[in-house]
Amino acid sequence: MVPRYSRPQMTAIWEPEAKFRIWFEIEAHATDALAEIGVVPKSAAKALWAWWATNPVIDVAAIDAIEAVTKHDVIAFLTWVAEQVGDEARFMHQGMTSSDVLDTCLAVQLARATDILLADMDALLEAIERRAMEHKYTPTIGRSHGIHGEPTTFGLKLAQAYAEFDRCRARLKAARAEIATCAISGAIGTFANIDPRVEAHVAKKLGLALEPVSTQVIPRDRHAMYFATLGVIASSIERLATEVRHLQRTEVLEAEEYFSPGQKGSSAMPHKRNPVLTENLTGLARLVRSATIPAMENVALWHERDISHSSVERFIGPDATITLDFALARLTGVIDKLLVYPERMQKNLDKMGGLVHSQRVLLALTQAGVSREDAYRLVQRNAMKVWESDGALSLLDLLKADEEVTAALSAEEIEEKFNLDYHFKHVDTIFARVFG
Amino acid sequence: MVPRYSRPQMTAIWEPEAKFRIWFEIEAHATDALAEIGVVPKSAAKALWAWWATNPVIDVAAIDAIEAVTKHDVIAFLTWVAEQVGDEARFMHQGMTSSDVLDTCLAVQLARATDILLADMDALLEAIERRAMEHKYTPTIGRSHGIHGEPTTFGLKLAQAYAEFDRCRARLKAARAEIATCAISGAIGTFANIDPRVEAHVAKKLGLALEPVSTQVIPRDRHAMYFATLGVIASSIERLATEVRHLQRTEVLEAEEYFSPGQKGSSAMPHKRNPVLTENLTGLARLVRSATIPAMENVALWHERDISHSSVERFIGPDATITLDFALARLTGVIDKLLVYPERMQKNLDKMGGLVHSQRVLLALTQAGVSREDAYRLVQRNAMKVWESDGALSLLDLLKADEEVTAALSAEEIEEKFNLDYHFKHVDTIFARVFG
Amino acid sequence: MVPRYSRPQMTAIWEPEAKFRIWFEIEAHATDALAEIGVVPKSAAKALWAWWATNPVIDVAAIDAIEAVTKHDVIAFLTWVAEQVGDEARFMHQGMTSSDVLDTCLAVQLARATDILLADMDALLEAIERRAMEHKYTPTIGRSHGIHGEPTTFGLKLAQAYAEFDRCRARLKAARAEIATCAISGAIGTFANIDPRVEAHVAKKLGLALEPVSTQVIPRDRHAMYFATLGVIASSIERLATEVRHLQRTEVLEAEEYFSPGQKGSSAMPHKRNPVLTENLTGLARLVRSATIPAMENVALWHERDISHSSVERFIGPDATITLDFALARLTGVIDKLLVYPERMQKNLDKMGGLVHSQRVLLALTQAGVSREDAYRLVQRNAMKVWESDGALSLLDLLKADEEVTAALSAEEIEEKFNLDYHFKHVDTIFARVFG
Amino acid sequence: MVPRYSRPQMTAIWEPEAKFRIWFEIEAHATDALAEIGVVPKSAAKALWAWWATNPVIDVAAIDAIEAVTKHDVIAFLTWVAEQVGDEARFMHQGMTSSDVLDTCLAVQLARATDILLADMDALLEAIERRAMEHKYTPTIGRSHGIHGEPTTFGLKLAQAYAEFDRCRARLKAARAEIATCAISGAIGTFANIDPRVEAHVAKKLGLALEPVSTQVIPRDRHAMYFATLGVIASSIERLATEVRHLQRTEVLEAEEYFSPGQKGSSAMPHKRNPVLTENLTGLARLVRSATIPAMENVALWHERDISHSSVERFIGPDATITLDFALARLTGVIDKLLVYPERMQKNLDKMGGLVHSQRVLLALTQAGVSREDAYRLVQRNAMKVWESDGALSLLDLLKADEEVTAALSAEEIEEKFNLDYHFKHVDTIFARVFG
Repeated sequence: MVPRYSRPQMTAIWEPEAKFRIWFEIEAHATDALAEIGVVPKSAAKALWAWWATNPVIDVAAIDAIEAVTKHDVIAFLTWVAEQVGDEARFMHQGMTSSDVLDTCLAVQLARATDILLADMDALLEAIERRAMEHKYTPTIGRSHGIHGEPTTFGLKLAQAYAEFDRCRARLKAARAEIATCAISGAIGTFANIDPRVEAHVAKKLGLALEPVSTQVIPRDRHAMYFATLGVIASSIERLATEVRHLQRTEVLEAEEYFSPGQKGSSAMPHKRNPVLTENLTGLARLVRSATIPAMENVALWHERDISHSSVERFIGPDATITLDFALARLTGVIDKLLVYPERMQKNLDKMGGLVHSQRVLLALTQAGVSREDAYRLVQRNAMKVWESDGALSLLDLLKADEEVTAALSAEEIEEKFNLDYHFKHVDTIFARVFG
Repeated sequence: MVPRYSRPQMTAIWEPEAKFRIWFEIEAHATDALAEIGVVPKSAAKALWAWWATNPVIDVAAIDAIEAVTKHDVIAFLTWVAEQVGDEARFMHQGMTSSDVLDTCLAVQLARATDILLADMDALLEAIERRAMEHKYTPTIGRSHGIHGEPTTFGLKLAQAYAEFDRCRARLKAARAEIATCAISGAIGTFANIDPRVEAHVAKKLGLALEPVSTQVIPRDRHAMYFATLGVIASSIERLATEVRHLQRTEVLEAEEYFSPGQKGSSAMPHKRNPVLTENLTGLARLVRSATIPAMENVALWHERDISHSSVERFIGPDATITLDFALARLTGVIDKLLVYPERMQKNLDKMGGLVHSQRVLLALTQAGVSREDAYRLVQRNAMKVWESDGALSLLDLLKADEEVTAALSAEEIEEKFNLDYHFKHVDTIFARVFG
Repeated sequence: MVPRYSRPQMTAIWEPEAKFRIWFEIEAHATDALAEIGVVPKSAAKALWAWWATNPVIDVAAIDAIEAVTKHDVIAFLTWVAEQVGDEARFMHQGMTSSDVLDTCLAVQLARATDILLADMDALLEAIERRAMEHKYTPTIGRSHGIHGEPTTFGLKLAQAYAEFDRCRARLKAARAEIATCAISGAIGTFANIDPRVEAHVAKKLGLALEPVSTQVIPRDRHAMYFATLGVIASSIERLATEVRHLQRTEVLEAEEYFSPGQKGSSAMPHKRNPVLTENLTGLARLVRSATIPAMENVALWHERDISHSSVERFIGPDATITLDFALARLTGVIDKLLVYPERMQKNLDKMGGLVHSQRVLLALTQAGVSREDAYRLVQRNAMKVWESDGALSLLDLLKADEEVTAALSAEEIEEKFNLDYHFKHVDTIFARVFG
Repeated sequence: MVPRYSRPQMTAIWEPEAKFRIWFEIEAHATDALAEIGVVPKSAAKALWAWWATNPVIDVAAIDAIEAVTKHDVIAFLTWVAEQVGDEARFMHQGMTSSDVLDTCLAVQLARATDILLADMDALLEAIERRAMEHKYTPTIGRSHGIHGEPTTFGLKLAQAYAEFDRCRARLKAARAEIATCAISGAIGTFANIDPRVEAHVAKKLGLALEPVSTQVIPRDRHAMYFATLGVIASSIERLATEVRHLQRTEVLEAEEYFSPGQKGSSAMPHKRNPVLTENLTGLARLVRSATIPAMENVALWHERDISHSSVERFIGPDATITLDFALARLTGVIDKLLVYPERMQKNLDKMGGLVHSQRVLLALTQAGVSREDAYRLVQRNAMKVWESDGALSLLDLLKADEEVTAALSAEEIEEKFNLDYHFKHVDTIFARVFG
């Protein structure tokens, strides 16, 4: 976790105190269930919750000090709780293993983290939709290979981003379901020393599904799928960030990351407004993505379990969720306040002197009875002049002055081929598909 | 694609002929729709299908020869079809771009490939289930960290594998839905030159969903999600393969990959039966997984599209699906014919002289009124003897001969603690969760 | 291997026939050494080489047919050779294991592949150097964050690429040394059944170093380092390819991939020259890079060896080297024939009306005694006018017309600050560092 | 960075104070050089060093507070230093850009981190060598595919590890040279505003090489190579860790991670000593390796530079070096104190009743004139009895009682084939190669 790329709500989930609070809840709910089925006295559960009701401070340092002696984190925690609660606490954890607590806790943490990410995603989708509606019919050049292609609208660009992040949202929900499971099945996961009803109770209380078959640990294919999904989302962030970076290039300058009116660019150079937020997002995307492979390598635990996955998860659990949260929020800010320059878009559209319309003229000539070869020759000779003038000449003007062309098409007909609206007639269809 | 790791049904999907057949279907269905809405004559569509009805051979070499000249694969194909069909073929492809054909074709190929993978998965699940039922109550030692833990059953091991691959199947279905979309939206994806009804018709005919907003290309977050899912499945294959490799180790030998009775191991060494199939699966898993990152790197295309994803997909499209198909089939064979040795499992269970039961004895002593410290001391001193004998001594025998122990527990009570069935009382619960 | 991204010289290395030829050489050289030290008759070696001198065709199909029965590739090969050579062939392979042949063969293949890559690299370096010299002083705008920064020269851009690929060349040489080792150490690598002098002889004949300690197999950290190095080189290819893609953007157009004068762009649109080669290189870079992680995962073989690495290497061995060879050659072609447009570079440099020089003016004003705050205000007010004019106004003209400015600096002094040569005074220093 | 997987000496390098100290040194050395060539007064440099000689505390919070306003880390630092040093400080940083400071600082940090890693590696090599010498002739079974192969020695296992880490050490040294370069070349890297002699001076003072051509930033192919190298080293750690994990398996138990005599295993189960350190190393290896791909993705910066690499490096710079340092130290501890059980190795060697010697007997029979088919039949029929007895019978005994065998070989001759020393005759050769 790098502080500058983190937000407090998400980091809080991964702090020791939050972890210990979840541990307590797991243990206390389990004690409730153990009491209900008669394995431990009901007073034990009562004592735990009574203490909890005092809203006790979790003394992380004290627990760490015990761990330094016992070399075992869960035992250290239980010991500390017992010191606070007293004798009744000895009934906690009956028949359970550390993994029951650790893995279920991780499920709670990842589920909570995902809830934040889902809210982030909603905010992002809202921002994209608002700007898409605003620029539904703002003409801009569509580019393939970085080269001018056919006209499109800036709203369509954003509609594509919306659809992509909407898919990401659905993937994230599916990923949440993957990891939100509870396992309290004891050593090797056979339930030999713990009744499955305990697991059912804890799962219900924590809002988790049952892990159908755990082998002391929750199987890591779930986490692999989870982190792979974050990696895909990060890649979509990279796509939209890259788009903004391209649009902000000095030569293009169709949009810019927001800067406040008073804000200096680079001292005396007003053109030096760098797309640093989206460049940063490009890097953060790489980082989130890098959790994918280790998460997959974690799947093949030996036999019923080993502990090789644990160190990996201590890194990628916080890092991937905290960084993705930060990135989604940053991207939302970028889109929300993006400075969009329709005049520059139009200027760029016109940059090639109308060459982007040459295909429509070609087709029109053919339909007007000119042979394909002749039509091509007519368009091409005018197009080349425009090209060689570096956009100083206008294709429309040249065509209207070309007698061979005007023999086939009237000035009005030619002009109609340069009408941008032709390209936008299905914008509404696409918007309806995307925004419903 | 490496021939030795491929199966014909899957490679067929990726052969040029199959691709051209899909291209034709896309073009012909599109022509149908164009005819229906009056853009091209109905005779054009009719001519295409009439030729198709003759079940023509696709002359891949001829198409390649045209491409060598035109430097454009779709144009080469259209030219060749036109040569076969005649003049009516000129109405094909009206208003479409190459990407409409290429991306929709890839969707069909990946969907078909996934159908094979789903069938593979069904066969694997069936094999695992059958063996799980067979060994539902076959006792075996559960291992954490590679060290003997508590008893479990071989059926439970397989039940966990079943549950994991059942999840993989669900993920694969979701991944299929991700990539099975049709885009026929023309240059830059605006539908300026092609009516959206054409896309709707082709999608329906090919069993694809509509791509809500394509920008000449289908967005690559879909494919990233698809290949990431294959990577997760590969990781689950690695897990089960690793389990078999462990079980076949000379010192463990609880199960072996099948070898026919007459088959020689390594010349004179009958013990030299190597788990080469599962080792191979471990390697294939790495390979399938390696498609994940490039597929994610493909997402951030520039503006409406670039072509950087294409070369990557020419590799990973065939490689990942063909290799995963082969791996799933190989794993199914391994599980289906796995030689399982219950006697050896029992022998290994007994290897530690009953130490795996020490915890239950400890608990029983405490419950019989012995202090925790004393109980620990009693169990520990006998356990250490067993340990030092390398399993030659029996913990049960020693305990029954320890007067301090027998003062608290009867011989029958002690023996009961060594009862394996104690560990298996919830096997049925777990099986019901997994197999329904 | 994808045929369209491969070149015959490199694919030849990976064809079965080439492999069998290397196998033969290993076996025959080993037989020489065995004969020399008296383990096998000298006639055996003589017979092998006598047959080899007939330049026999390797009948791959026949060998494959034998393998289909024996299920063992090396035995199949030895059997086939024995059929050709006769009785004396039975002395081949004495005391050796299959891995001795397989791993040493892989070393030869990778070494040969690397020799081709080194030659590719030389050609690339030569092309870059030639173009760098040509454009040593061609002014162009340097960009940070995609935004105009300070002037540089196109030659300096290429000098940086040269230095980077020169490092890549050194890395490639180091990587070659990593994998060019010979292991002929028998089962488990103890030399129990084969004299180390055999290994020494074969190594010398094949131009390989000795593997100091093999454990039946050559350790895979070597191959991990090798493929990681290819991944770094691929990343450098991506960098230069991305540069070209940027330069070819419609709005920038400072350079273009070559197209022949007669070649059509996209029908009537002369601007539609897409940087498809460099986009393709971007994708190929991702692919080559994707071999890195599986190669690293191959390192942790179990005990003395397992076979999990083998399937991975059957893919990445050919794929990474063939693709990188193709990519280097393609990049060389791109650079060699790159269309460079100095006028457009100058036009872009001037695009911001001289704003790129504002910092020098600012500094000059301060040095002329104007306070930092005043100097900033003076430059800023003129710079903003230029900026708002979208480059239509000239900063130089405005400054020369600003009385507060001219009170501090003469027209000549101001003009000097707009002198591009100021920025180029150390070009020669840098060129000397890079090109020696 | 995860505190539990870090050591203070390495984390210190990455703390803000250390960074600021390096920044100061860069700036002060640069000021020295600027003074030397007459660009700034010598008093400026003197003032900086005079303040530095007071061994001032770096007030990180104060610098952060300034950054919160200026939004620029280097400017914040310079401002704070100026507050401390006074007016003379204004001459600092003349003609430099932030990247000059940031990139050169990263070079210093990575170089220092690498020096620690090199020292770690030396300690590891020393530990491995010591244990290898100790067990040079400790017999143990060599395993291929996890299956007993031929005898080897535990010393040879360690010799292979030594050779592998010795290669890793050489790679690490090469990687250090990759990143230990100094760039002080000003905006866009042209030296327009800073004399190359400044760079030369700072480089010399900091022990760095000159970056031949920087483009405001040091090219990131260097860092890609660096982190890829760490990934390879991590993979070698995984290999040795996996070996220990295998050796500690309950059924194998040839070696164990150290536990102190008084240390409890898992309560009453003395066999429950888990290889948690090496499992942990397996996970840490995955994490270090995961820096490789993002570091490679960082290479293709846009034009002269963008800032996308920066966020990635803020994670992987500390994480990869800190974690690798921790892992190397942990592995050194594991090897240093590894509990090795030669008796158990012998027991496992004998486990198959001498089957590992069957091949030598087979060969001896052939050499004694028995036909290959008969020899095979004779060995095989006895081997199968041993195999079916699960090692209870002895191949040697059976062979000596087989009259057909004894007709060809004397008892002494048979016994000689079971002599382990036969396998160890070249141990010394291999040790000489590895340890010199």
